[in-house]
Amino acid sequence: MTDRIRLASVGLGRWAAVLARAMGRSDTLEIHSCYSRSESNRREFMETFGVAKSASSYEELLADPDVEGVVLTTPNDTHRDLVIRSLEAGKAVYTDKPIAQTLSDALAIKAAVERTGGVFAVGHSARRLSGCRTMKQWIDDGTLGDVSLVEANFSNERGLELTPQTWRWYLSKTPGGPLIQLGVHHADNLQYLMGPVKAVSAHQRRLYTESEVPDATMAILEFESGALGYLGCGWASPGIYQIRLQGTKQNLVYDLDFTHWDESHEADRWSSLVSQAYGEQERSPVELAPTDMFREQLEEFGFAARGQATVEVDVDAGIRALSIVHAAIASNEAGGRAIEVSDFVSGERGHQDR
Amino acid sequence: MTDRIRLASVGLGRWAAVLARAMGRSDTLEIHSCYSRSESNRREFMETFGVAKSASSYEELLADPDVEGVVLTTPNDTHRDLVIRSLEAGKAVYTDKPIAQTLSDALAIKAAVERTGGVFAVGHSARRLSGCRTMKQWIDDGTLGDVSLVEANFSNERGLELTPQTWRWYLSKTPGGPLIQLGVHHADNLQYLMGPVKAVSAHQRRLYTESEVPDATMAILEFESGALGYLGCGWASPGIYQIRLQGTKQNLVYDLDFTHWDESHEADRWSSLVSQAYGEQERSPVELAPTDMFREQLEEFGFAARGQATVEVDVDAGIRALSIVHAAIASNEAGGRAIEVSDFVSGERGHQDR
Repeated sequence: MTDRIRLASVGLGRWAAVLARAMGRSDTLEIHSCYSRSESNRREFMETFGVAKSASSYEELLADPDVEGVVLTTPNDTHRDLVIRSLEAGKAVYTDKPIAQTLSDALAIKAAVERTGGVFAVGHSARRLSGCRTMKQWIDDGTLGDVSLVEANFSNERGLELTPQTWRWYLSKTPGGPLIQLGVHHADNLQYLMGPVKAVSAHQRRLYTESEVPDATMAILEFESGALGYLGCGWASPGIYQIRLQGTKQNLVYDLDFTHWDESHEADRWSSLVSQAYGEQERSPVELAPTDMFREQLEEFGFAARGQATVEVDVDAGIRALSIVHAAIASNEAGGRAIEVSDFVSGERGHQDR
Repeated sequence: MTDRIRLASVGLGRWAAVLARAMGRSDTLEIHSCYSRSESNRREFMETFGVAKSASSYEELLADPDVEGVVLTTPNDTHRDLVIRSLEAGKAVYTDKPIAQTLSDALAIKAAVERTGGVFAVGHSARRLSGCRTMKQWIDDGTLGDVSLVEANFSNERGLELTPQTWRWYLSKTPGGPLIQLGVHHADNLQYLMGPVKAVSAHQRRLYTESEVPDATMAILEFESGALGYLGCGWASPGIYQIRLQGTKQNLVYDLDFTHWDESHEADRWSSLVSQAYGEQERSPVELAPTDMFREQLEEFGFAARGQATVEVDVDAGIRALSIVHAAIASNEAGGRAIEVSDFVSGERGHQDR
């Protein structure tokens, strides 16, 4: 117990609790401290998760020599400032996805990572789901043959439940709506599986949400490899989390019951991966080894904070995923025309500064 | 037996046999005659399906006073000529999908239908599948709530098996590849379910087929209702036939094992329709009443030939479906830009005359 890696939770809302439960399942991590602007939230978090300490300011938390790494779950538009301050204080820092709200924020983070040499991780945990790992392996070892089409959908009912009290209600805080909140996961998954995306063509609609943001988005991704990808994200229906790969030898369909997403140690039990081989009528379920994506990524981050690991999803992967979102927003504004992603990765577009 | 409706099969390839088996399951239809340029094909068809008569030319077949309706399964680029000649001979005529290869062909057929007042049906049978009928009902009666996103995929391995001996090998005969051969089914299904499409944005790639045609196509459909649709079609993977609807109250996923498509009286047994309701964790299979899409559409056509029914999929529905295909091809040529469908429906675009 004495040598557990000491992390600090910052931004103590619903997602901080999900990650705190994941840290609670770890033998190597402990939540050493926590911070939120609300004192009552701090108190409640300490009680719920048995955290010994809290800080009354972010400065105080960063000044604590016992804190080895910071775990951020604050709104997207705060990531830039909080990540950079953590890096400049010499603390490893993990932020939940997306890396930031805008590309200029993300590139400022990249500059700070390079300047400080600090440890920085982005919470694109979904690629760690057992189904995604297996899909990647089947692509790499040739089991699927050549993949021409890949389709992904991540949707839920969030847009029907938003209120003006939540930051996700506002277009200025959540550009793209479900695309930046849900779709960015698949933007990482699909590039993890298929390599970099070259261009994006997208359409967005605000149909049934009362909020400011779109609740229906579709994008076609042109991969550098030549393959085509589809990304559908809605905020006005029951939950969907799916990826389908079409290869010359096999198809694979991965499906996760989204209602079990939060408890990542159980997510694989509510997942299915099904293959259909060329020339075979029957479909075959593929066995999925149990994983725990949130615990595993935070453990990796903790070890990286001690110099004993490197983070898998680094600043560049975070920028690549965010670039898809902003290229899609730009494409929608251009009537669906294909928009090159490279301009966003390099920071020439997608600033949308506030 | 004596009063069976007497139809004649024209173009005696693989698909003619599928439809002949469907007519064989009918109590009201009989195959009275048949025609193909190849005498050996005619003889084989007569033997296999117990057809008493064949014609040595299309003129001879059309001149047969006992033939009440013509069932065409010839290549797409022959539809215009064969349909118009049948109408002008006073014969009801059914053509397999697509209505024609080009919009100008389709509009010439429309003019002939209007000029002759004849009976004309297009074989967009897939909307008759039990799952599609149930989806339509659940949309119309409000069970799904408001539908914002709909996704469809129809793919198979055809592109990997094409040879220069088949007309589908050639771009001049099969513009769009799987889009015109498979996707046109969903172009009808999706408009049957969701109303007319306003604009199409699409990308196509020729990746793993040795033929001239694309084997990977994706399109985003903007419906006049505001909803967004996706249509994915590949010719370089095992078969997929799926439609997913995302409504504010429920999602519905329809899945058909494509390997059982040809035997339409058994297709429902190899289909599943699964709902997921808002706020419910469990998914529920929806019971599908048995249908037989090929038999039912041909019986409807037969009764229409006798003036006892009207055809559900008429010339306008056929044109609407084909317009999606040609708008998608034009969009791909324009780098994925959204293309208005109305220009194609009206015949101002999409001629691609040979």
